[in-house]
Amino acid sequence: MNEFELINRLTRSLPVNKSVVVGAGDDCAVLDVGLPDRLLLFKTDAVVEGIHFTPQAPPEKIGHKALARCLSDIAAMAGTPTAALVTLALPKTFEATFVEAVYDGMNALARQHQVAIAGGETTTNPERLLLSIALLGTVAKDKCLHRSGAKDGDAIFVTGQLGGSLAGRHLEFEPRLAEARWLAETFAIHSMIDLSDGLAGDLRHVLKASRVGAELLSNAIPISREAKLASKNESSAKTPLLAALTDGEDFELLFTVQPENAPRLPKRVDGVSIRQIGEITSEPGKIRVSEKDRVWDLEPKGFDHFKPEG
Amino acid sequence: MNEFELINRLTRSLPVNKSVVVGAGDDCAVLDVGLPDRLLLFKTDAVVEGIHFTPQAPPEKIGHKALARCLSDIAAMAGTPTAALVTLALPKTFEATFVEAVYDGMNALARQHQVAIAGGETTTNPERLLLSIALLGTVAKDKCLHRSGAKDGDAIFVTGQLGGSLAGRHLEFEPRLAEARWLAETFAIHSMIDLSDGLAGDLRHVLKASRVGAELLSNAIPISREAKLASKNESSAKTPLLAALTDGEDFELLFTVQPENAPRLPKRVDGVSIRQIGEITSEPGKIRVSEKDRVWDLEPKGFDHFKPEG
Repeated sequence: MNEFELINRLTRSLPVNKSVVVGAGDDCAVLDVGLPDRLLLFKTDAVVEGIHFTPQAPPEKIGHKALARCLSDIAAMAGTPTAALVTLALPKTFEATFVEAVYDGMNALARQHQVAIAGGETTTNPERLLLSIALLGTVAKDKCLHRSGAKDGDAIFVTGQLGGSLAGRHLEFEPRLAEARWLAETFAIHSMIDLSDGLAGDLRHVLKASRVGAELLSNAIPISREAKLASKNESSAKTPLLAALTDGEDFELLFTVQPENAPRLPKRVDGVSIRQIGEITSEPGKIRVSEKDRVWDLEPKGFDHFKPEG
Repeated sequence: MNEFELINRLTRSLPVNKSVVVGAGDDCAVLDVGLPDRLLLFKTDAVVEGIHFTPQAPPEKIGHKALARCLSDIAAMAGTPTAALVTLALPKTFEATFVEAVYDGMNALARQHQVAIAGGETTTNPERLLLSIALLGTVAKDKCLHRSGAKDGDAIFVTGQLGGSLAGRHLEFEPRLAEARWLAETFAIHSMIDLSDGLAGDLRHVLKASRVGAELLSNAIPISREAKLASKNESSAKTPLLAALTDGEDFELLFTVQPENAPRLPKRVDGVSIRQIGEITSEPGKIRVSEKDRVWDLEPKGFDHFKPEG
């Protein structure tokens, strides 16, 4: 059983109450606790030594990544983060200076986005460091973006460059909070998600939630320098296109807008590129990729935590 | 460095913003997000295989315990829980039916208290199961109870019976949510905490936050049947009094009220006993224990996750 099959089984009949606007299955849970104009966004995310970072990773970057991943999910719903709690599960022996450096990286990113670190807890995980962040944010009731809003004919856009994140970007990426809010306030964005499982995997989440399909233009997909370099230098590496489609942890935004809006979108926001990579189609769950001389179906395959990583 | 020393170092200069009413150092973080009459309570807590439960523990009870611990912290501030997120870090191989049973135990307790399970995530922790809960609740602005409100002369009360929780109660305890809310609405409660580190350890947290001391009457401390039995059957066991003072994971409430209120408190609420065990004194941090024929100082020592457990 893989991660997604297990999650499907576990989330079939979860307890709900009237506060829940969106439960399991979007980037964040969305709660209405009685604020007149705003909804709460609620998210948790963990990074584990040996899975999401190597034992050699600089501690500041581990802290940065742990918080940035959660911020990226708040961004995906066009929200503003408020406060985080930190769960630090430490091996039996640890260096206090190392742990402090993890916090330094996390605190610096929190300050940059005016997020409070409001506490948390420490516990023991004997074999390896695990760092879990719980994050609260808010979003205007009429500006909250979901995975489920994509419509047949929508233009599909991504921010930044994709693929090859494991070469280093996954430890130091900047969550697209300001860009997402600006997009939500300025255009009729229909759906949004952040790219953690890889373009193909996350696009598939949008398609499933929206009951639509997609056609991607291969030569429009922005491929990172790292993905191109890896393909050039290592004969066993993925092709640059495959890396951009399937590598995890880009933490860029994917969003869809009604086609009339597409030409009005700028090429860049705050130095971050925005690029149309295809359009939504009516065939549920189907992803077609158009290359110069052929069109092929992209089969389901994404980044799965339960499969060993390369 | 032990858990509390590390936490002291890490929480010295955390990022804050105007939403934070109470940050690190109480049972929950307290946030003001603009609700007219209520504050948000925000809490995370993790249980780890081999630390908080054995590999032989019934999975339903693991799920129950994980959520109950967080609910107990919401209770300690007289709050009402709203919604939880579940972080499930699974070993490389796991039984789906086991994980579903963990959720069954958690979901049953959530339904009992009208708490929504609004999502979460799964990840990998290769050697052992780790289950972390993030919980949101609310509390009326004028009813939120803190560790810091104890005053010289206050009567100190506890609910239930203390000590010997590891014999089984730690897996199936009921968080004292209704009892705490009733107490906060009915009496002038000055301070409250839930007993997770042991009576002595948690009382010390109240004393530190409130800059006061305490005198306990040894024969007033309600000692559990398990603690008495262990002392009778095992020559190496703690005395019943020491077990009640220092065993962790009772998850009962400790609270202080102004002395005039003490005689008005009932002996029981909803079948849970309430008992005065001593009073607050003016000497900061000092805990004295009065026995029939002697008075002694209780030195700092509590349940510490970084020390191996018996």
